[in-house]
Amino acid sequence: MPARQGYLDELEKLKNDVIKMGSVLEESINNVVTALKKVDGKLAEDIIASDDKIDDYERKIEKACIALIAKQQPVASDLRRVTSIMRIIADVERIADHCADISEYIIKLSNEEEIVMPKYVIEMVYAMKQMVVDTIESFVNEDHDQAERVIAADDIVDDYFEKIMDELCIAMKHNPDKIRQYSEYLMIVKYLERMADHATNIAEWIEFIITGELEIGKQ
Amino acid sequence: MPARQGYLDELEKLKNDVIKMGSVLEESINNVVTALKKVDGKLAEDIIASDDKIDDYERKIEKACIALIAKQQPVASDLRRVTSIMRIIADVERIADHCADISEYIIKLSNEEEIVMPKYVIEMVYAMKQMVVDTIESFVNEDHDQAERVIAADDIVDDYFEKIMDELCIAMKHNPDKIRQYSEYLMIVKYLERMADHATNIAEWIEFIITGELEIGKQ
Repeated sequence: MPARQGYLDELEKLKNDVIKMGSVLEESINNVVTALKKVDGKLAEDIIASDDKIDDYERKIEKACIALIAKQQPVASDLRRVTSIMRIIADVERIADHCADISEYIIKLSNEEEIVMPKYVIEMVYAMKQMVVDTIESFVNEDHDQAERVIAADDIVDDYFEKIMDELCIAMKHNPDKIRQYSEYLMIVKYLERMADHATNIAEWIEFIITGELEIGKQ
Repeated sequence: MPARQGYLDELEKLKNDVIKMGSVLEESINNVVTALKKVDGKLAEDIIASDDKIDDYERKIEKACIALIAKQQPVASDLRRVTSIMRIIADVERIADHCADISEYIIKLSNEEEIVMPKYVIEMVYAMKQMVVDTIESFVNEDHDQAERVIAADDIVDDYFEKIMDELCIAMKHNPDKIRQYSEYLMIVKYLERMADHATNIAEWIEFIITGELEIGKQ
């Protein structure tokens, strides 16, 4: 088997695993939406428990990337593709971590006096989720325009964060007895904002795969 | 030059760069302490601007790691050492990012009506900073016990976070006009808590270098 074919076959396997890892993440985000809407502490616990699956994928894919570099010694854009995958899975893992972090706050909220969910939280989750879905899709198709749209969408999520923080500060003032719960929602939306940042990172790695130019850190 | 000597020479260079990157991070954390104490928006801007230096180190070291894997094809503990360095610098970069994130909130605070710094914030920064310093040192000496102490110290930082969050909720109740500023401090301490988490990750990678056993994700 020619060396390049060996590289291509192994890369294909890698890509499939990344896509599978992305599906597990999407499922986790969907569960976060449900747990948030119902303030469901039990489901939140399940989300935390399922984080292991993502960690396992990360280790498996990383190992395969290293083995591929050592064995096939890819250069130029072939090497770029593999190293970018290593960075992408690290960001996917962080997003999944934040699903677990948010779940911890859902559990706290489920044990406290209920409050009405602050405005825009669900809209913010959906905006962030769309970024993740689009990122995975742009990875599959190496679609530069779609990756660009993900990066642009980060502003929308950031705006939601600012708007919700303003709303929460007003709500705390009017309902001082609920300050604890509002603070917990503030933590939750902070994590959502970070998740969108990680999706942006992934989109930038995808652009790097396609163009060879790295935008990360320039923002 | 025998292959193994080539590996050892390149590894030595890598390690030195990681130590230099660690020094830049320490300087950045020291600046955060000063900027926090004085609520110094100008210094906070400098911290944000200096984040590029860390990003440059990360890219340079990562490139060198990949080149080393492709060229020297290390196996077993030699390979483990290189791949762990790639993970360590990613965590160092995140901690530096959070220095910049905190600085954004210091700038906001510097433009608002001044409030007394909430209790324990500075103690929390120092506890986190000590973890970072000890992590770098345990990396230099491959000191398993010191890495263990870093991991144990994470609980102290977490306790500070919980204590400060409680304090902030009470303070908000008593000073509803300062809720905005207290919310910003809440964001700052959340970042401090994350920074300690990243230091813990680094300590776990150092243990992995030494023992070959990975504790990450098991916590």
